Formats: sequence, C-alpha cells, structure tokens
Amino acid sequence: MDELRLRILTDGRNLGNGILKVDGFINHQVDPTLMNSCGRELAQRFGGVRATKVLTAEISGIAPALTTAMYLSVPVVYARKTKPITMPDQIFLTLAPSHTKGRTVELIVSPEYLGREERVLIIDDFLATGQTIMGLVRLAQAAGASVVGVGALVEKRFEGGRELLSTLGVPIEALAVITDMDNGKIVFGD
Amino acid sequence: MDELRLRILTDGRNLGNGILKVDGFINHQVDPTLMNSCGRELAQRFGGVRATKVLTAEISGIAPALTTAMYLSVPVVYARKTKPITMPDQIFLTLAPSHTKGRTVELIVSPEYLGREERVLIIDDFLATGQTIMGLVRLAQAAGASVVGVGALVEKRFEGGRELLSTLGVPIEALAVITDMDNGKIVFGD
Repeated sequence: MDELRLRILTDGRNLGNGILKVDGFINHQVDPTLMNSCGRELAQRFGGVRATKVLTAEISGIAPALTTAMYLSVPVVYARKTKPITMPDQIFLTLAPSHTKGRTVELIVSPEYLGREERVLIIDDFLATGQTIMGLVRLAQAAGASVVGVGALVEKRFEGGRELLSTLGVPIEALAVITDMDNGKIVFGD
Repeated sequence: MDELRLRILTDGRNLGNGILKVDGFINHQVDPTLMNSCGRELAQRFGGVRATKVLTAEISGIAPALTTAMYLSVPVVYARKTKPITMPDQIFLTLAPSHTKGRTVELIVSPEYLGREERVLIIDDFLATGQTIMGLVRLAQAAGASVVGVGALVEKRFEGGRELLSTLGVPIEALAVITDMDNGKIVFGD
C-alpha cells in the first residue's frame, strides 16, 4: 500500500537492531486518516474470508483493528494484558514473548466475547517474529473459534513471522513489507 | 446521545460499587459502528474549539479518541503507561490515581508529539473522578499546550469529575451521563 510505505519513508526511522520507529503516526501519535485508509484496505483484502470478529492485542493493534472492523461491520476484541475487574474469573489466557518489551506478556480474552463458530480475523500493527499473533491464534483456538486470516500494517519479513504463521494455512496480508533494515536502510519488498 | 444510552441499558451491567460493565461494546469487545457514531458526535460538539490534536490515555480511550480525531482531521496522541524503547529519554510524565486499578499509574507523552501552541482536545471513555483526565491536562500544560475541551463517552456524574474539571473553564461533554447507580439502577441525567 503506497500511502503507508511512503509515510514510513517520510516519518519512520530505523533505530537499528530491527527497531522501526513509527510512533509519529501508528503507535503513540496516530494519524486517523491513514488508519482509516489502512482499515479500508485490509477489509478489502479480507473481504472473502467471512470474518465474524476481528481480534487484536492491546495496545497498538487497537487502531488498525478498529478501522478494519468498521469496514467489515463486525465487532473487534482486543486481548488484554492485565485482567480488568469487570472480567469473569474464568478466562482464556496465553503467554507470548514480547520482542520489543524483552519479556513475556499475558494475553487475556473473556469467553463472553470469543466463542465457538466464530470466524476470527487477526489484525495487528506489526508482523515481526509472529509471537504475539501466535498468542492470539492460541486464544482463538482455546475458544473453539477458527482463525480465517492474519493482517498487519507493517511486516518485518526478515524476522520470520510469516513462516511461523504459514502453518495455519490462512491468508496473511501486510500493507508494507520490509525486507531489509541493515545499515540504517528501510527496503520494501513486494 | 440516544444510541449510546440505549446500548448501555441493553448490554451494560451495573456490577455495584459504581462499576459499570461495558466491556461488550466499549473496552474489551468494541462495536466499531457505535464508536464511529460517538466520534462523529463528539467531533460535532467540539467543532468550535479549533483543536489541533486529540489526547487520550491508553487503553480504552483509544477507540473513541481515534474516531473523534478522524472526524476532526487532526492527529490523536495516546499517553502511554509504560515508556517504549522508541521514545526519547526526555519525556512528559505525570502520575494519576486509577480508580478501577486501585493504584497509581504513570501517563507518559513524548515531547515530539505535544508542543507549545497546540490546542488539545482530551477524549476518554469514562469521566468519573476526573483523575485520569486531570493527568492528561497536566501533560498538556507541561508541554505548554492549551486544553480546549474535554469529552467522554460515559460520565458517572456522582463521582465528581465534572466539578474537578470545571476549574479549567473549557467545554465538557459526555455522550451518556449517569446520575445514579445505587441498588443496581442505571439512571441517566440530561
């Protein structure tokens, strides 16, 4: 998606060690017009999978998941990283190693909002090692739901997440695929 | 706003002790169509304040703040509760007591995205004691920005936040104002 790739080149920064700073338009300050375009594009790419729910992880998945769900006219559920007092005692919980946080985080979903027969489209801001997304897959599976697709704004293909997720046999889409960040570069693939 | 009030009566639950469970459509599972309507309504109510930025707090403020910002065509910044590695060392940080968490949380904004001359509209899911919103006000003030309005989806008027914020002298809007939650009731005010 040209609009996102251009924005990454203009306002993103390669901080080294595979860290892409996009907090001016994706994950601290958010450009709502860009998120709206990205949601429309993801909804279009997954138009055929008949999703009944979008699933993401707080925090930075919320914006793209919300706009995608808006265009698909389905609810979005964001997995919580801490259990709020309004959640029942019995929950779905999985652990996912967080690359950027350097530790393992909990991903928690209430059984009230993820059930059997549900067709789940997973949306997140980044597809990197795929660990967070695999955590979301496990939550969906624990609920007896089917995962029907995985979408991300930005993929860092060199971190191997796509290979990990390919075993799921569902469509995987990323709006900007980065193939190389060595030596300060930001190189896009197809 | 009738649509939100009706939804609270239909799908919300009064859990006692002033706790309103709205995690089926606002803060765990989110109804994107409702959030879109709420954002449009808030943007309309604040159409006159000439906001240049929307400010909210992660996590559950993100959805309404994003849709409001979308209709106002301005960026939205969400204050982080932990400092990510992509943020510079010098930051704006304030402490806010969290009613629902029973502890004090940090609210952090990068100076890159909140500056002097900025006209800040604060949007959050709840206006209750007003402590989180006052934290956001302090962050805006630390940046030398002006707060030009405060908007929330749901106000629990009996918790006094509106009085606290009234000293700011800016318009305060809530789309659903609850005046009484005693004995399992959910009573709306004007």
